[in-house]
Amino acid sequence: VLIDGREADAVAADDRGLLYGDGLFETIAVRDGRPCLWNAHLSRLSRGADRLGIPRPDPRGLRVEAKRLLAGVAQGVLRITLTRGRGPRGYRAPDAPVPTRILACHPGPDDDRRGADPRDGAAITLCRTPLGENPRLAGIKHLNRLEQVLARSEWTDPELLEGLMLDGHGRVVCGTMSNLFLVLDDALVTPPVHRCGVAGTVRGLMLEHAAAEGIGVRVGDVSVSDLFRARGLLLTNTLLGARVVARLGDRRYDPQAAPRPLIERVRAAAFRPERPW
Amino acid sequence: VLIDGREADAVAADDRGLLYGDGLFETIAVRDGRPCLWNAHLSRLSRGADRLGIPRPDPRGLRVEAKRLLAGVAQGVLRITLTRGRGPRGYRAPDAPVPTRILACHPGPDDDRRGADPRDGAAITLCRTPLGENPRLAGIKHLNRLEQVLARSEWTDPELLEGLMLDGHGRVVCGTMSNLFLVLDDALVTPPVHRCGVAGTVRGLMLEHAAAEGIGVRVGDVSVSDLFRARGLLLTNTLLGARVVARLGDRRYDPQAAPRPLIERVRAAAFRPERPW
Repeated sequence: VLIDGREADAVAADDRGLLYGDGLFETIAVRDGRPCLWNAHLSRLSRGADRLGIPRPDPRGLRVEAKRLLAGVAQGVLRITLTRGRGPRGYRAPDAPVPTRILACHPGPDDDRRGADPRDGAAITLCRTPLGENPRLAGIKHLNRLEQVLARSEWTDPELLEGLMLDGHGRVVCGTMSNLFLVLDDALVTPPVHRCGVAGTVRGLMLEHAAAEGIGVRVGDVSVSDLFRARGLLLTNTLLGARVVARLGDRRYDPQAAPRPLIERVRAAAFRPERPW
Repeated sequence: VLIDGREADAVAADDRGLLYGDGLFETIAVRDGRPCLWNAHLSRLSRGADRLGIPRPDPRGLRVEAKRLLAGVAQGVLRITLTRGRGPRGYRAPDAPVPTRILACHPGPDDDRRGADPRDGAAITLCRTPLGENPRLAGIKHLNRLEQVLARSEWTDPELLEGLMLDGHGRVVCGTMSNLFLVLDDALVTPPVHRCGVAGTVRGLMLEHAAAEGIGVRVGDVSVSDLFRARGLLLTNTLLGARVVARLGDRRYDPQAAPRPLIERVRAAAFRPERPW
């Protein structure tokens, strides 16, 4: 673990990341010692920093530190955490915050999760823990993740890869750790992330590639009945890439419903290590 | 600072309190080396632990550690943080979490905030940052506090003590760090905290003492127009006790509107150190 560029394993007890969840993070797939989608992750981190009023991290400094940490790591997961840094007690942020940056390299992801053939559809469930709606926090990957922790605690069955979450109005938004696409009336639909949820990097890739290939994707509200009406479901995240859903509860989906070439291209892009690095 | 009973100033970088805001805290006024409202704070901490599925802290152990930390502290603020402890990457909580407990003693609060004559009303503002609604997280004092941090960043005027926050439906819920009571149609009203907000310890005292004195308090939804229609406003928290509001924007309030004996008794109870300790 590198904390502010130094090897360390502990963070100051008065860091606002710990006191209030006052910060952001990114989870990045690593292949051949190189991060995947580095620019997309750095760009979301900067957007999040702007939103929270935390000074943006220096991308060149982060790259140097990531290189140091990832040297010799064939495969793994890089987590970058950026907090507002230390501060006195109380919600009021320091006038001139000195952010804390933490880079940690983790093992994984399991091959079956990252490299798996997308035709092997995943089994998923529906969570009862709702997502609170707050446009000021939606889309960015901040450290306030209790909703996801509680939702993830709703199942222990190792066969279940993911749980979908609804907002307080019963709209389906995303999984605990992934974004959702539906094949509905022969078009792709994905829920908006301006009220809650995270704007996933691979969600962004899907929208980009679909547009480039002339495949329409509608960003629109999704109901639970849409889930059951859909011909196919697809989950995206930085470690899964794009993964077809085989089953939600008793409902089974056509694994061929989603456009195969699009999925393959998005997966290839999601797992292509950054070059030059 | 005492971390798990040992003097320390840093927390493991993989503590879930830092990774996901996966934990709880309490802020406790200290007088004569003794915490105020100890039992109420410990009880809320335990309720929060039950809600999040974190093992409850041992109250006797916490008391021993608090005594150690507060020896010789005439006046101050004790913060107790309880996290789910260390864990691997990912939202899934460890099957047998070992919580981290952090006890930190801070200076303050300023006399004018804690000891001030409640007749010196405070000036407050209205925040634009909304509160997300989530019944699973409402009422407890968890570590996901970005909404409060963003709301608190909306003003820098040192004359303003507090900012009120609305939920996504425009209902007034609380201040960034306090609960709210209104004198409305000659009755006391306070917003519910089952959709968002924190069930403050002094809010609880207000409800208890009012009931004991036969003063009716209605727990009910409050609109912005109710704020302007009210004869008086009152803020409560563990460091303020109960504090009358003099002004919200241009609207001035009658500092005599709230029942004075009730306020005095709540303040006395809020600042009475625990005995025996």
